[in-house]
Amino acid sequence: MEISGRNQIPGMVRRIEFGDVVSKVVIEYEGGEITAIITSDAVRELRLRPGDYVSALVKATDVMIVK
Amino acid sequence: MEISGRNQIPGMVRRIEFGDVVSKVVIEYEGGEITAIITSDAVRELRLRPGDYVSALVKATDVMIVK
Amino acid sequence: MEISGRNQIPGMVRRIEFGDVVSKVVIEYEGGEITAIITSDAVRELRLRPGDYVSALVKATDVMIVK
Amino acid sequence: MEISGRNQIPGMVRRIEFGDVVSKVVIEYEGGEITAIITSDAVRELRLRPGDYVSALVKATDVMIVK
Amino acid sequence: MEISGRNQIPGMVRRIEFGDVVSKVVIEYEGGEITAIITSDAVRELRLRPGDYVSALVKATDVMIVK
Amino acid sequence: MEISGRNQIPGMVRRIEFGDVVSKVVIEYEGGEITAIITSDAVRELRLRPGDYVSALVKATDVMIVK
Repeated sequence: MEISGRNQIPGMVRRIEFGDVVSKVVIEYEGGEITAIITSDAVRELRLRPGDYVSALVKATDVMIVK
Repeated sequence: MEISGRNQIPGMVRRIEFGDVVSKVVIEYEGGEITAIITSDAVRELRLRPGDYVSALVKATDVMIVK
Repeated sequence: MEISGRNQIPGMVRRIEFGDVVSKVVIEYEGGEITAIITSDAVRELRLRPGDYVSALVKATDVMIVK
Repeated sequence: MEISGRNQIPGMVRRIEFGDVVSKVVIEYEGGEITAIITSDAVRELRLRPGDYVSALVKATDVMIVK
Repeated sequence: MEISGRNQIPGMVRRIEFGDVVSKVVIEYEGGEITAIITSDAVRELRLRPGDYVSALVKATDVMIVK
Repeated sequence: MEISGRNQIPGMVRRIEFGDVVSKVVIEYEGGEITAIITSDAVRELRLRPGDYVSALVKATDVMIVK
């Protein structure tokens, strides 16, 4: 399965904060932490747990640059 | 200046591909490369050049997880 | 610090509605109100309060047009 | 027709820069300018012209805050 | 009223899960189900109910492709 | 491989319009057509061709509702 999204940042689930409709998942990657807000359904469906190896998927059009 | 966006991934501009309305900027971060699609105006206005130290800014609601 | 995002709409925080994972922040700008959904962490970290002068930051690729 | 998107910022089309696949539309609103990147098809289909009264539509989850 | 967003997928509201700040709305379209996360304000304001005929509106720049 | 994105709409590539930095891919799904704007790199890398069976991947937070 290939995805057109240009950015897949590998890392490990560090913390999960469950919410009523959306949840926060913090991923530790080589350079620091990335926070994702995804549906709580997705957390359950992917059976995400701290320690899981995952990738953070980000579309290139969703990346801004700060200089 | 503080930004609510949770993800600021530090890196260095590796390549810039200028387009008519939008341009592609490839940033090298510790773990690999991140691609951003931003307006060509922004590339000019921020005077982005290969070698510049920048951060890739991504809103947490724009991050999906792949497992 | 410069941001590639084309749209920074200056205004004042009018109301904040705290949520478990994400929160709603209503900003009054010259022409009306703008609603942002950001992480509750960001609200705390930026110590956002009603009356604060802020900007609503929106990437050009996230703007649709209605005619 | 009602749209769930929380932010509809009324203004007037100031400039249109046509691109091969996407185009830039600059909208003048009461407080300044908003830039949208939409498909060139959409510009043609909506017959957008400088001087048109439009609204910039932005989902609340796409709004960051800068303080 | 015309919207620049390229994708309006017609369907019927199947389920609504109310959240504190954002809510989940599941829409049944011809090929299956689409999930939207919108503000709880929008659910109230549009008086969304199961059985309502609606469209899921998605900007073309927010669509990735999986092959 | 599982993706947290809630919406994967199966269909077939109908047309591809190559652009300098981003390209337009039109996917025919059961109920009509979906347009995606992805990087031209992604089109090449996924070797997308008319007739390919793909899915349109859309994050739930990127779906608005029109009633």
